Amino acid sequence: MSRRPDSVERLVERAREGDARSVARLISLVEDESPLLREVMAALAPHTGSAQVIGITGSPGVGKSTSTSALVTELRRAGKRVGVLAVDPSSPFSGGALLGDRVRMQDHALDRDVYIRSMASRGHLGGLAWTTPQALRVLDAAGCDVVLVETVGVGQSEVEIAGLADTTMVLLAPGMGDGIQAAKAGILEIGDLYVVNKADRDGAEQVRRDLRSMLALADRTDDAWRPPIVMTVAQQGQGLDEVVGELDRHRAWLASSGELARRRTRRARDEIEAIAVTALRARWGDVHGRSELDELATAVVEGETDPYAAADELLDAFAD
Amino acid sequence: MSRRPDSVERLVERAREGDARSVARLISLVEDESPLLREVMAALAPHTGSAQVIGITGSPGVGKSTSTSALVTELRRAGKRVGVLAVDPSSPFSGGALLGDRVRMQDHALDRDVYIRSMASRGHLGGLAWTTPQALRVLDAAGCDVVLVETVGVGQSEVEIAGLADTTMVLLAPGMGDGIQAAKAGILEIGDLYVVNKADRDGAEQVRRDLRSMLALADRTDDAWRPPIVMTVAQQGQGLDEVVGELDRHRAWLASSGELARRRTRRARDEIEAIAVTALRARWGDVHGRSELDELATAVVEGETDPYAAADELLDAFAD
Repeated sequence: MSRRPDSVERLVERAREGDARSVARLISLVEDESPLLREVMAALAPHTGSAQVIGITGSPGVGKSTSTSALVTELRRAGKRVGVLAVDPSSPFSGGALLGDRVRMQDHALDRDVYIRSMASRGHLGGLAWTTPQALRVLDAAGCDVVLVETVGVGQSEVEIAGLADTTMVLLAPGMGDGIQAAKAGILEIGDLYVVNKADRDGAEQVRRDLRSMLALADRTDDAWRPPIVMTVAQQGQGLDEVVGELDRHRAWLASSGELARRRTRRARDEIEAIAVTALRARWGDVHGRSELDELATAVVEGETDPYAAADELLDAFAD
Repeated sequence: MSRRPDSVERLVERAREGDARSVARLISLVEDESPLLREVMAALAPHTGSAQVIGITGSPGVGKSTSTSALVTELRRAGKRVGVLAVDPSSPFSGGALLGDRVRMQDHALDRDVYIRSMASRGHLGGLAWTTPQALRVLDAAGCDVVLVETVGVGQSEVEIAGLADTTMVLLAPGMGDGIQAAKAGILEIGDLYVVNKADRDGAEQVRRDLRSMLALADRTDDAWRPPIVMTVAQQGQGLDEVVGELDRHRAWLASSGELARRRTRRARDEIEAIAVTALRARWGDVHGRSELDELATAVVEGETDPYAAADELLDAFAD
């Protein structure tokens, strides 16, 4: 007996009713860049925009997975539906796999109001997967109140995650080599909330002090958000209530200051632009076998033209 | 008495005669994205393509500056004209400044067959400056036999440098924390030549062994290039003759295998594409004040459309 595949519309409907299988199926369509991708995105659009998107990043060893899991517990306590996208830059694997023991998510495996998905990263630089924003839209449309996007803070991902999230939470911990010094300067620019995890360990107070003095150097206007620092022991769930409190406070500030709309518009802009550029690249690179772009590149290598003139020709060729 | 500014043509002519001031002026025009940029690039084009471009990368502390300087000495001994582009990701400063004591280049400051230029990096992620490929074209057209592009191996720059260079040289040294383990996996994919500097220190032999066994894991076809490992003590100029020998051997292999043409075509392709995409982004982002892209982004945020449909609209709007 063969089953008719569900229509996209039906999948979206069921995902919105909380059916985890349908959510999984939709994310897979997105990840595989299925021919149905556009239809999926169009069907999701009217239902998006209500999820609070929280990016969680930090160096390996600060306790990101434990913190994410503890935060899920805390959010569930508040009755929220939670989605988790864990982007693993060290893994070339993707797909529907639950995170198993990498992330301490077993606690939530049976909770139907928690949806957890692991996504592979793009390349070895630790950038987010190309499809992360789309997967986020699936979870948003599926009715998640909060979506946590967790990624190791290496390479590009920490900056990309700040581009995706409404609120970016940066995790630190004592005893990470040079501590704050090791934290790349970038981390100080992206955090809306800093969490010093493993606060029961030696050196946690020092991390907080260092962080506070470094954050104080930033030039902020009077009405700007001042990123708070919260101390946690995620393994014991300590401090997570305060984290949720600060996340709520940030969300309120985002809304009242107009920054939420600005961030979301910027995010949509980046997303549209990336899709348009990718589409153009595909066109440029693939026209009747040997591409226009290849011809132009050869002319540049041979000194017959320069890259700027070639770029003009490329744009002209596709403007018609 | 006011001097008429030199014409671009005259500048290129003088740069090709070895006039350092003209080279500096051309690179400044490129870096500042001067309105003359296109004219400069067009004037350079016929004279490009003969320089051997060597990328030099490695973690902070491996002795990149010392190695670059020692390599310049060795190349000068062989009668080569040498250009050096040092991309400093930690510096927001750019412009005509010689590197002073950051790079140990004083030895070469008075040598008119050595041209050294420091370039700031783009953003805090350590990517190469947007204008690095164009500055490279200036040095190429100015008759440099070899151009060394040196950058700290952080963030993106090491991968970008491999995209720019004919030959990529990765520096390592003993005693760098976890040694090879710390070296990101990416480094093993990009090197055409590995140099273990500070070879007189404890642990250098171990670095070589680790590196060799890690490189052995790579799946290479029979006719593929096998990256050699050279031991150096750059501070004493030891091993640099062997480095130059291996660079020559790699260049010969690049030419005979056809890989040189492939790499250069790919480089030109990337460059053209980047210029075209930048031009498009400027158009999309700036049309009658409020941009088409902003309108579309707002529609996406409000759930009226999805990013794919918006990207289609964006492309249609500019296809006319």
